[in-house]
Amino acid sequence: MFSVKNVSETFNIIQEQFSGYPLDEEWVNLTDALYRITAVDIAAQENVPGFDRSSVDGFAVMAADTFGSSDSMPAQLKLSGEVKMGEKPGFAIKAGHAAYIPTGGELPQNADAVVMVEYTENLHDGYIYVNKPVAPGNNVVLKGDDTRCGDLVIMAGRRLKPQNIGVMAALGINRVRVRRKLKAAVISTGNEIVSPDERPAGSQVRDVNTYTLYSGLCAFGAQPVTYGIIKDDYETIRKTVGKALDECDIVLVSGGSSVGTMDETHRVIDSLGKPGVLVHGIAVKPGKPTIIGKIGGKAVVGLPGHPASAYVIFRVFVYKLMEVMQGSSAENETSVKAYMKVNYPSNNGREEFLPVKLERVGDRLAAQPFFSKSGLITFLSSADGLVRIKRGREGLNAGEEVEVVLL
Amino acid sequence: MFSVKNVSETFNIIQEQFSGYPLDEEWVNLTDALYRITAVDIAAQENVPGFDRSSVDGFAVMAADTFGSSDSMPAQLKLSGEVKMGEKPGFAIKAGHAAYIPTGGELPQNADAVVMVEYTENLHDGYIYVNKPVAPGNNVVLKGDDTRCGDLVIMAGRRLKPQNIGVMAALGINRVRVRRKLKAAVISTGNEIVSPDERPAGSQVRDVNTYTLYSGLCAFGAQPVTYGIIKDDYETIRKTVGKALDECDIVLVSGGSSVGTMDETHRVIDSLGKPGVLVHGIAVKPGKPTIIGKIGGKAVVGLPGHPASAYVIFRVFVYKLMEVMQGSSAENETSVKAYMKVNYPSNNGREEFLPVKLERVGDRLAAQPFFSKSGLITFLSSADGLVRIKRGREGLNAGEEVEVVLL
Repeated sequence: MFSVKNVSETFNIIQEQFSGYPLDEEWVNLTDALYRITAVDIAAQENVPGFDRSSVDGFAVMAADTFGSSDSMPAQLKLSGEVKMGEKPGFAIKAGHAAYIPTGGELPQNADAVVMVEYTENLHDGYIYVNKPVAPGNNVVLKGDDTRCGDLVIMAGRRLKPQNIGVMAALGINRVRVRRKLKAAVISTGNEIVSPDERPAGSQVRDVNTYTLYSGLCAFGAQPVTYGIIKDDYETIRKTVGKALDECDIVLVSGGSSVGTMDETHRVIDSLGKPGVLVHGIAVKPGKPTIIGKIGGKAVVGLPGHPASAYVIFRVFVYKLMEVMQGSSAENETSVKAYMKVNYPSNNGREEFLPVKLERVGDRLAAQPFFSKSGLITFLSSADGLVRIKRGREGLNAGEEVEVVLL
Repeated sequence: MFSVKNVSETFNIIQEQFSGYPLDEEWVNLTDALYRITAVDIAAQENVPGFDRSSVDGFAVMAADTFGSSDSMPAQLKLSGEVKMGEKPGFAIKAGHAAYIPTGGELPQNADAVVMVEYTENLHDGYIYVNKPVAPGNNVVLKGDDTRCGDLVIMAGRRLKPQNIGVMAALGINRVRVRRKLKAAVISTGNEIVSPDERPAGSQVRDVNTYTLYSGLCAFGAQPVTYGIIKDDYETIRKTVGKALDECDIVLVSGGSSVGTMDETHRVIDSLGKPGVLVHGIAVKPGKPTIIGKIGGKAVVGLPGHPASAYVIFRVFVYKLMEVMQGSSAENETSVKAYMKVNYPSNNGREEFLPVKLERVGDRLAAQPFFSKSGLITFLSSADGLVRIKRGREGLNAGEEVEVVLL
């Protein structure tokens, strides 16, 4: 009955089953566009620059007039006018003439180069003395040199960074078509779980998953919807997951590290629609008791109850799921290289995502693993990233270089 | 008159002049705490776990009862009760007895170890058969093992990640004392600048800096306040900067790559209060015409008008300024290692922050620099990071490993 998958199989199932998830699009203003996912390719609707312009502060000239000039034999050019920023020059350059032009100013007619102010001398006698020749095109950006009308500048599925928002401003695009944010339900189950607002009685413990998952969804750019802490029984879980499926794109149910509870989540998912459970258990440490299901195109994920395991599974598999569902590339996943500070034995047959704390040692990063004895609080307050240990590896050696996905 | 500084001098001036900036504190709920900066050290107010608990699904026992057990000679223990999650066990373990206990369940009195369910057999005859001995303390987490009441778990000045928010939930801390977000004014100057909503006439260009800086401030976690596009004259700049200084902690004035405008911004800063301008020009490429001033403890930064230069200076120096003003460590600055795809000559005497595009080649990252001819649009749509080229370097060689600060 159990369809335990390994890590790659799980990634493949996510890719196959949730690609092309139909997510609505919406318009947002540029000031609301940060980290949103573009829904369409964005092309330039005009040439940039829109006119021939100077790339330096200097003097617009006909290049031929400067040929042969040098410190000892400067070219003497008559000063005839000044280009003002933002204004069309109302004059043309004649042979033997030059005009002051600021960086970004429009090249006057007939000028084909700009001499940097550093290579000129101004004796205030109505002339400018050029002591270095320029070739045609020097210090000039021609109309359309930067981008041409019709050029693709940002592809669909891109997570917009500040500089990408700038490109749209430069092109006069003041609204952008983006995909709606994914809505993700957060449900904590467990008879022993109480809210952080309450004082645990007896051997109750506080709800941590609602808060790590809520914040993790915000960090990803999804919209979390919380459904509180519910009891660990079939009917309650079924009612809550059903409601969440109506209202959200993804339902995260954490809790139930024991086989019994996992079975209940499994039954709930299968009872709510087709195809139901796709993955029941992942051969991974931590987080083996993870379930991934699909109902009416939407995703239901059963996460382990242990907060460290739940968060690792969230960052590895739910991040991937969300990237796939919103049709974006995994740019969210920043990883850095570090070296292992100590040996880490890993003799189980499962692939492992090892939480580590990073510290800077000289110009390198050192990764200090958390051993299984490390408590939850240590993990939550100090984990900086995850090192993936492939199956078949006997562990990691001190000094070995590893790739650390930042948490 | 010009006090041009190099990069390190500028960082030092920022550190000296803006450390200890008085930023108010406020309480936020855990669900609003993501990426906020803690204002105080956070200590555990209780022990975690709050009781001795099992770390596996299995049977609570007195370890001595399992000594000498093996597959061929299992220890036979009488099953007496079951520990329920979240409930205090209402019984004690007697010699020769065992009780089922789930992961996270509270250890009954007298039990000192837990045998994993995998190492037992249940013949449903009222006994459990243990075929591997456990030592006292095996599979048990003792009260306070994870953290003790009074332990420091998160230091002041920490930028809160999802896992850090989880630690507070685990400890029953449902509100957190954070520093107020920095308010930063964004002012674009330049007679040639028009809004992206407008069609540029003649040689006007669109305002890009308002949008990259606005988004960049959001990405950092500051609160941007826009003051629009203003004309390039002393009185207008002075009035707007003065108003912005009243309302914000930091004022960013972009525009005026020419020496004339830079002088006006300089005069404005000096006219508004003491100590006035601290840095007038930074020996850096791009972004030499950068001004940093201080008025009544607040910061005014004059950024170059060119959007690529303005954004580079923002990411390098204004990020640093904001980290210092809010008393946080520079955790915002994620950098990755990459190798140069091509040679990059850099024969100027200034330190350089070279924008690069990153691409994955096998398991390494390759950095493709933008040459000075690369247009603004290319930079805005493709720049992934900055490589710092120290002064005195003749440039970078193809294949050379470099550190890339991600944009």
